[in-house]
Parts: sequence; C-alpha cells; structure tokens
Amino acid sequence: MAVNPPELMPALPVPGFRAGTASCGVKSPDMKGKRQDVALIVSDVPCHAAGVFTQNRFRAACVKLGEQTISKSATEMRAIIANAGNANAGVGDMEQQWSEELIAAAADAAGVDAARVLSASTGVIGTPFPIKRIQDGMHEAADSLQPDNWETAANAIRTTDTFAKWASRKVGDHTITGICKGSGMIHPNMATMLAFVATDAPLTAEQLQPMLKRVADRSFNCISVDGDTSTNDTLYLLSSGIGLGHAPMADTAAYEDALAELCIELAQLIVRDGEGVSKFVTIHVTGAASENDARTVGRAIAVSPLVKTAFAGSDANWGRILSAIGNSGVDIDTGKITLKADAVTMLKDGNLRPDYKDEEGMAVFAKDEFTLHVDLGLGDSAATVWTGDLTHEYIVINAEYRT
Amino acid sequence: MAVNPPELMPALPVPGFRAGTASCGVKSPDMKGKRQDVALIVSDVPCHAAGVFTQNRFRAACVKLGEQTISKSATEMRAIIANAGNANAGVGDMEQQWSEELIAAAADAAGVDAARVLSASTGVIGTPFPIKRIQDGMHEAADSLQPDNWETAANAIRTTDTFAKWASRKVGDHTITGICKGSGMIHPNMATMLAFVATDAPLTAEQLQPMLKRVADRSFNCISVDGDTSTNDTLYLLSSGIGLGHAPMADTAAYEDALAELCIELAQLIVRDGEGVSKFVTIHVTGAASENDARTVGRAIAVSPLVKTAFAGSDANWGRILSAIGNSGVDIDTGKITLKADAVTMLKDGNLRPDYKDEEGMAVFAKDEFTLHVDLGLGDSAATVWTGDLTHEYIVINAEYRT
Repeated sequence: MAVNPPELMPALPVPGFRAGTASCGVKSPDMKGKRQDVALIVSDVPCHAAGVFTQNRFRAACVKLGEQTISKSATEMRAIIANAGNANAGVGDMEQQWSEELIAAAADAAGVDAARVLSASTGVIGTPFPIKRIQDGMHEAADSLQPDNWETAANAIRTTDTFAKWASRKVGDHTITGICKGSGMIHPNMATMLAFVATDAPLTAEQLQPMLKRVADRSFNCISVDGDTSTNDTLYLLSSGIGLGHAPMADTAAYEDALAELCIELAQLIVRDGEGVSKFVTIHVTGAASENDARTVGRAIAVSPLVKTAFAGSDANWGRILSAIGNSGVDIDTGKITLKADAVTMLKDGNLRPDYKDEEGMAVFAKDEFTLHVDLGLGDSAATVWTGDLTHEYIVINAEYRT
Repeated sequence: MAVNPPELMPALPVPGFRAGTASCGVKSPDMKGKRQDVALIVSDVPCHAAGVFTQNRFRAACVKLGEQTISKSATEMRAIIANAGNANAGVGDMEQQWSEELIAAAADAAGVDAARVLSASTGVIGTPFPIKRIQDGMHEAADSLQPDNWETAANAIRTTDTFAKWASRKVGDHTITGICKGSGMIHPNMATMLAFVATDAPLTAEQLQPMLKRVADRSFNCISVDGDTSTNDTLYLLSSGIGLGHAPMADTAAYEDALAELCIELAQLIVRDGEGVSKFVTIHVTGAASENDARTVGRAIAVSPLVKTAFAGSDANWGRILSAIGNSGVDIDTGKITLKADAVTMLKDGNLRPDYKDEEGMAVFAKDEFTLHVDLGLGDSAATVWTGDLTHEYIVINAEYRT
C-alpha cells in the first residue's frame, strides 16, 4: 500500500558499469527460480568509490569489510555484490567468513580481484547465511551482466519493498544512476538500508567521500519509517570517470546538487513504500540555530509513535507535535514556535491562532500527502525530513515478518 | 486489554492526609456527573515534599510551577490538586494563568495557602483548559476529603487507563500509599505521567528529594510503553511525619527500599495497562559497565517498534533485539553478548547456540509474560526495564484518541 508511488523514468546506463542478477533462493530454497535475489554490479574499469554506513554498533560483517575495502582500495573498486533475503547479521563468528566467501564468489564470477569487491546483504537478521545457494547462482548473475540492467538489479535487492526503486540524472555529459531498497527498520543514521549509485563523472575518491556524506545527510539521513536503524545500512557511490580516462572534475557543486536530488528522490521512494505507510508527510523545520538542530527536531517528530498514529487517524493533534519537539533534546523556546500544516497556521509564536478551527487542521491531515512547517524562531538554519504514518498494516507486516 | 492486572490490596490511609474528588466534566461538559476527574489531596499539617518532573523541553505550566513551589516551600506543603481530561499544555500564554487559577481554587476550597499547593494536569494537549468548570466543582472535592479516599482519587486521575492504580506499604510504624495514572505517551524521563505518594514517615525535604530521584530511576524511569515522554510527567512524594511531631528518621535505607518497591509496583501497573499492550515483558540487563549503560540498553530494546511488534507477533526474532542493542549508543562488544528469553539461551558470547531451535524461543515469546536476559559481558552493573508489545490496539487507541 505504497503512497502515490510515482511512475519511474527508465534507469539510464552508466558508461563503465554493468549489472546482473540471479535467483538463488536466499530466503528459502523453494524461492529459487521464482524471484531474483542477488545483484552483481561490475565496473569494467577500476573506479573510485565512497561509502557511508550504519551507526548501529551491531554492524554486520559486510559493513565492516566494506569500510575496510573502501579505505584500502577506494581508487580501484571493481564490483558490488548484494543479496536480499538474509542480512548475514547477528550470526556470530561465521558472519565474516560468509561475507568473505560471498565476495570471493562474486570476484571469481566477475573475473576481478576480491580485494576490490564490496558486498551488502539485507533481510532477516540472525539466520545462518545460505552461502552455498548463493555461490551456486553466482555465474547466473555474471552471465546476465548488461549495461541496461539497473531496474532488474533494483528488483533483486527488494525485501518487503512493494516496488523496485531507482533514479537517474544527467549532469552535463555524465550520468548518475542509483538503486535502493528499504521499507522497514528505516531510520538511517549515515545511510539507508541499501543504496548503490554509479556515475561516470570523473570524481576522485577524495572528492567522493565527503560529498557522499553531505548528500546522505540531506537525503537518506532525513527519512524515517519506524525509528529503527538497521545493522546493515549501506550507501555506496562508484565513479568510473577517472578509470575511463577523463580528467578529474574541477567544479563539483552542480554535480553534488544533482547527486543530492537523486538521493532525495530515492529516499522519498523508500518512505512512500514504508511498511504499512498510508501517508507521506514532509516535515520542514526552519528558524533553527543549526542545520543539525533542525534535522534533530524534524526526526523527533518523524519518529514519535503518537505523532505517527495521529497521522494515521487523520487527527490534527498538534499537541503531540509540540511534545515531540520538546523530546528532541534541542534547546527550544516554547514561546517562539510557529506551526503550520500546509497553508493552515495552528500556532504562532507559541500561541494557538485565536480563530483556528480544528476542522482546518483535520482537512490537511486527511490528505495522503502534506507538509508540516515548524519554525523554531531561533536562527536561520533549516532541514527537511520525510516520514510516513504508523498504521495497523505496519504491525501486521512486522508481527509476521518471518512467518 | 490490560495484561494480568493484579487484584490490588486496599490502599491504606496515611496519617495526616485526606483525599477528595469531584466530577467536573473536564474533558467535555457532558461528562459532568458521569465520572470523577478532579482529585484533591490535602495534608492536615505542613508536610515535607519532593518532586521529579518530565525532561520534555515543552514542560507544561503545572510542571514549571510545581518545581518552583517545591523549591520554595518543600517543608510546608499542604495540597496537590490534579485533574484528568486536559493537560493544560501547549496552549500558549494562558497556560500559566490557568494553572495558577487551578491552584488558587484548590487552596481556597481546602483552606490553605496557595503558595503551598502543587498541581498536575493530564489529558489532551493543546485544548483550552476549562478552568471555570473545575472551579465550579472544587468544593465538591473539598467536601469529600477523607483519609480512606485514595482509591477514588486514583480513579479520578485516569485518562485512557483501564483500571485505577494504587499501592501501599507498611514500613515499621509508618505507611506509604501511592496512586498513579498512565497508559500512553509512556517513556518517562524523570517520572511517569502522574504519581503521588504520601507517607507519614518523618523524612525531611533534604532526605526526600535525592531519595525520590534514585527511586524514580529504578521504577518509573525503567518503563516504556511507546517511547514518548509526556510534557506533564510528574512524581510527587509528600511526608507528613515531621509535621505530625515525629523526629526525623536517622537510617532511611529500609524505607527507601520499601518506597522503591512501591514505585516499581506502580510503574509495572502502568505497563500492564499500557495502551494496546497484550504482553508484559521484563528486560534484565547485566554485565554492563555502568548502571546507566544497562538502563540505556534496556530502554533501547523496550522502545524499538520492531522488537515490540515481534513481541506482539510471538515471534522470537532475536536479531531485532541485537539490532536494538546496537542502536542504544552504548559501547558494546558484539562478541560478548549473551541473550536468553526466560530459561532459553539464544546467544552465548555473540554466537547463536548451536542446538538452538526457533521453537524454543517461540514458546517463550508466545507467553503473555516473560523475561529477556541480556548480558553485555563488560562489567558488573545491571538494570531492569519493563515494557509491553506494540499492537493493533495501540494504533486504534491513538489514531482515534480525540474523537
């Protein structure tokens, strides 16, 4: 029951990259042949790479290995191997070995050095990783490598996602294409569940890493479905441009804006497809002392179960929004807060608008998409956060996820 | 649908104190005469007092005034006036005036100095406070003041609570009786929604305040229903012993233990009556580097929507518990964590028990009460936290709270 999922424009091929998929029955052997669940992305040339990762202290082995690989080989990356159906997380001592075996199998099938391969796994936590089934299917993934295979790859990394997620942008002569997945356990703190972005823009690893961190903070770190940060959240950005012989880009500002736009688009798709989400709510916080404060306030509203159930019930219970702001930990002046829902002003400088009628707020909250405007009245910084409501359906999905 | 609410023992009268109630139609005029919604607690002698309050930055006026009153008159307190149905919070400039008028009306009816009266309000946030209706009913509350009226008072402060909550203890010759309310927006950070404890033990304000803080940290601060901290959380402790002529108690250790027991009992009643809660789960965290770390880990598990929906679904999805631990922000060593549900060991030193069968965990999670044991393997500190599950019913209650 995704909220107004847009019709996606075709994913554009990115010079230097090919993607392939396989059906390995990762979650259960009887799914083999029924859905694609392994995605392999290969760069035909050594590419520059950057990654941002979950801040959950229980980081899966693939996250730890990925961080090491980025730090060692950020200028000569060759592939990403990803699977859905099993997160290879919380399974103890075997976890790292299984991740290494996954990487070795992908490197072998793609004909590249394993030290230049990143991996990402998503799905159930705490279940032994079916490495054998994935190894058996790896050549299927390698055999299907094609430049125009991004949409298939986006499909293969889905878990509870109801639709595959991708986006593309042209920046000058160059292309950016990204795919992602994510639907529950969404409260990224560095990145979302999984997102892979490829570009042929000639950007160096030194340019990519800080840019990706800034972009993640404006996109994937600004969405929340349920306030739970996963053990496996990973965002990778690969750039083939240098490997393809282009000179490094000098002015990256326009490129960074386009990358941020693309990542925001992907992040919003995740919220629209959030587990059980029936409303898509934008929370725009202004007048903050810092951008971090603005984002913290936005996120506090975005995760409050009481706010989210009020969204679900189309109840303009703005007192809960104030309470969530108060719980954010950010220093506020309650007498300076202005609150609007779309064009309807509820609170001005901490006071309820004298002629405010509940029906006005209710009419906004009844919509399946609306924007809350919170002005803290303290400074010039702003941030935007996107979230959904908390519905019956979320409970159903998550009470029965493994069954 | 409370979880195994125990049959409560009668609330014992406390020498020096009387309680009365009134039906004022606070939430709506047509409820007048239908349910009690105002409670007045009066001390016949000046009593010593302590309070702990919400850490939400959006603190209601009654909280701010209460803190001031405690700081000025902690040795000569005379009354608490409380109401359900309207929190008098988030309503802007009028809030403080309404709280002062509430206190003035109670002081007048009880024949005491308004500077020695505490107030507490609970209910809907952001709706103008019906001060006139409460003023009109105040003499009804004063006229009904009786030493044995605690249970009626507990009933009068209910909002979505399905049963009234009280507890009593005898400590030597002295009595402690407490009442509380709370059911949603429960993630106290200092105290719970509302709890008032009276005792005739001769304790000075200097003894009471630090003791109450320690006790709150072991009781009300260790429960969570939905992770939302209210704007109005308040816990008051009043002691009439000094005013009744007793010499101050020298050794307070046994008394503090009894007070903690009583507050834990009250706090657990709140969880059992949590909105939509169908399971009562105890989370016992050991092996932590500090008690604060242990409590932080316990609370992180207790608030995770994914853990709580797994409880609701009787799904022993322990991977989500690990993920919640990883999200707590506490430094952990994933290779040292041991996890048990009741007597069933799942993880030992970070590894899944080789012969663990999902059915074993499922059998525990299917119960309506069970205990998770988390050992961090890092130190000697421990804490216990109590929580419930996240069910359809929670959504129903909170999506439709105001309607």
